Amino acid sequence: MQSDLNRKALEIHKKYRGKITTNLAFKIKNKKDLALIYTPGVGEVAKFLSKNKKQTSAYTWKGRCIAVVSDGSAVLGLGNIGPEGAYPVMEGKCALFKRFANLDAVPILLNTQNPDEIISTIKFISSSFGAINLEDISAPRCFYIERKLQEILDIPIIHDDQWGTAVVVYAGLINACKVTNKKITDIKVVINGAGAAGTAIVKMLHYNKIKNIISCDSQGTICKTRVNITPEKKIIASMTNPSNIDGDLKFAAEKADVLIGVSKPGLFTKEMIKSMNEKPIIFALANPVPEILPHEAKAAGAYVVATGRSDFPNQVNNALGFPGIFKGLLQSNIIKIELNMLTNAAIALANVIKEPNRNNIIPSVFNPAVVEAISKNIK
Amino acid sequence: MQSDLNRKALEIHKKYRGKITTNLAFKIKNKKDLALIYTPGVGEVAKFLSKNKKQTSAYTWKGRCIAVVSDGSAVLGLGNIGPEGAYPVMEGKCALFKRFANLDAVPILLNTQNPDEIISTIKFISSSFGAINLEDISAPRCFYIERKLQEILDIPIIHDDQWGTAVVVYAGLINACKVTNKKITDIKVVINGAGAAGTAIVKMLHYNKIKNIISCDSQGTICKTRVNITPEKKIIASMTNPSNIDGDLKFAAEKADVLIGVSKPGLFTKEMIKSMNEKPIIFALANPVPEILPHEAKAAGAYVVATGRSDFPNQVNNALGFPGIFKGLLQSNIIKIELNMLTNAAIALANVIKEPNRNNIIPSVFNPAVVEAISKNIK
Repeated sequence: MQSDLNRKALEIHKKYRGKITTNLAFKIKNKKDLALIYTPGVGEVAKFLSKNKKQTSAYTWKGRCIAVVSDGSAVLGLGNIGPEGAYPVMEGKCALFKRFANLDAVPILLNTQNPDEIISTIKFISSSFGAINLEDISAPRCFYIERKLQEILDIPIIHDDQWGTAVVVYAGLINACKVTNKKITDIKVVINGAGAAGTAIVKMLHYNKIKNIISCDSQGTICKTRVNITPEKKIIASMTNPSNIDGDLKFAAEKADVLIGVSKPGLFTKEMIKSMNEKPIIFALANPVPEILPHEAKAAGAYVVATGRSDFPNQVNNALGFPGIFKGLLQSNIIKIELNMLTNAAIALANVIKEPNRNNIIPSVFNPAVVEAISKNIK
Repeated sequence: MQSDLNRKALEIHKKYRGKITTNLAFKIKNKKDLALIYTPGVGEVAKFLSKNKKQTSAYTWKGRCIAVVSDGSAVLGLGNIGPEGAYPVMEGKCALFKRFANLDAVPILLNTQNPDEIISTIKFISSSFGAINLEDISAPRCFYIERKLQEILDIPIIHDDQWGTAVVVYAGLINACKVTNKKITDIKVVINGAGAAGTAIVKMLHYNKIKNIISCDSQGTICKTRVNITPEKKIIASMTNPSNIDGDLKFAAEKADVLIGVSKPGLFTKEMIKSMNEKPIIFALANPVPEILPHEAKAAGAYVVATGRSDFPNQVNNALGFPGIFKGLLQSNIIKIELNMLTNAAIALANVIKEPNRNNIIPSVFNPAVVEAISKNIK
């Protein structure tokens, strides 16, 4: 089945030579049309915009065009496969921007992985776009790059692996708690994976007053006593692990209500799930192979299981988030995204499901209410 | 009339919010489609391309996507109006790429005018595109930027103000000579304007064995004895002005067969035209206001008059060149454009007109034979 899908994916990409094209917003039928959109008419627009720079978004495609930028350093679960490998993934995101939010987006693949070169390149091309979506850039470089660019640019820039994921995970968690009658601020959440996604999820849950969060990386729980810790993990330590538990994932999972994986296939075991509080909630989001398969998790007693995949119930996938997030930013002219806006978006996303149940905690990406709800609530 | 057109140009740009959009090459109807073009299917394409980098152009839109890049330093006849002013012009070119060559193109506006920052920015984003069209970058910076990038990049890069103009001018000149029974290699050609366009026209005509070329800039004829000369004008001096004439444009125009203006409105006078050889050929290409208006030039004895405008006969405009030139480069996988290829393209463009006459030396941009002829002959 998987090899069938893989073969077909290669076929489709070759047949259509990718997934997006440009098109004319205004049909050029004759010389008169040409005179309006090119010389001499365009000269008037050029003069006007040189004097009214902020109007550029209203008179060109800039206002609805997003750059999806990657250096190919952390692509899906494939790792550092460079700009060529990252290309179809970024183009795929551009296609989803069009399909779900009617936004224009173009893939920008960088052939440098030097953070300062990435920053200056994005800075110098930023006049071309209404917003920048950073994608698949490895941690901890992604934190530095995003922060620096947020300081410099006059357009919104979001590393979607962080914030898109955080929005969708928090939305799913809201409904999972409803379904299990857990009070969200009282739950114990263990997050395995402390890269871009794991870090942003911590920040999002902490902002929303979830007090008992434990974050694990490959060395085990992140605690305040750990030495040789990156600045970003220091922030995690300050927001999590109130009892300063120093141990492995298995130890952390005991008596947890929620286990979230944003790391690697196969890391969650039946034993871990059996050691959790009643009605365990499992988000096994490693893609395409999750930390544990849903039927195994359920056999061990999991009550709600979500993955990143479309072939199981409860698909917690970024594609639910970024089209609406960027649409909201552009339509409300917001330059700096904040956690309160992301929280509003997550709550709106959760509320798209009127009556959640264990197999329906998050809506389908094809539900048009999704983008509508998120974009209106980015404020 | 002009103010009417200007008002309408502004209206159209605001109404459609620019001139291009993106579109889906492959319709995403359901979860199955999504699984093919996004996760998990795209992972297979990502892996494949990371190992077969050269195939990226065949499996993504890279192979048919052109970046139209400008720093806004020399936009139309408006000068240094910056990236915002340049935006609608670049987007206009992208629309023409689509309309005439069915190529995808995106405007990239740079908010730096430092040549080395421009070079590094284009270098780092070049993985995203099949080709780069430099546009409206002031001379002499444009020569340095183009040359450096041609050395570095593995995709074609063309400064269209230079080479597109040279192709269309040479094509027009071939037919103008036919119409006037002048032998093209024997004509005396005076070119007023020694920026990007003027320099490339000199190189093109010199390559095609036109021996008696005189190039003028604001100081008069460029001659071998001039002091304080830029490197590019030194090259011009080496290719032109065989008698080393040192004088003004009026002096140079005496006994000329052809007067080409790529400079400013109003610089050609009736007296100049009257002093030329019989059946004078005038290309008054300043845009939108030419060096002399056609009826004035004809009243002074001009036999063939061409301008850059669509409302007079003989529109010598880049739009005739760049769609076919880039289409040809991409379909033949050519990385470095050479003068022989540009010459082939110009001859093919001239030949689109089977029986040229004084009011029809160059085809309409709406003639589909134009892109066909040029693209097939870029080789």
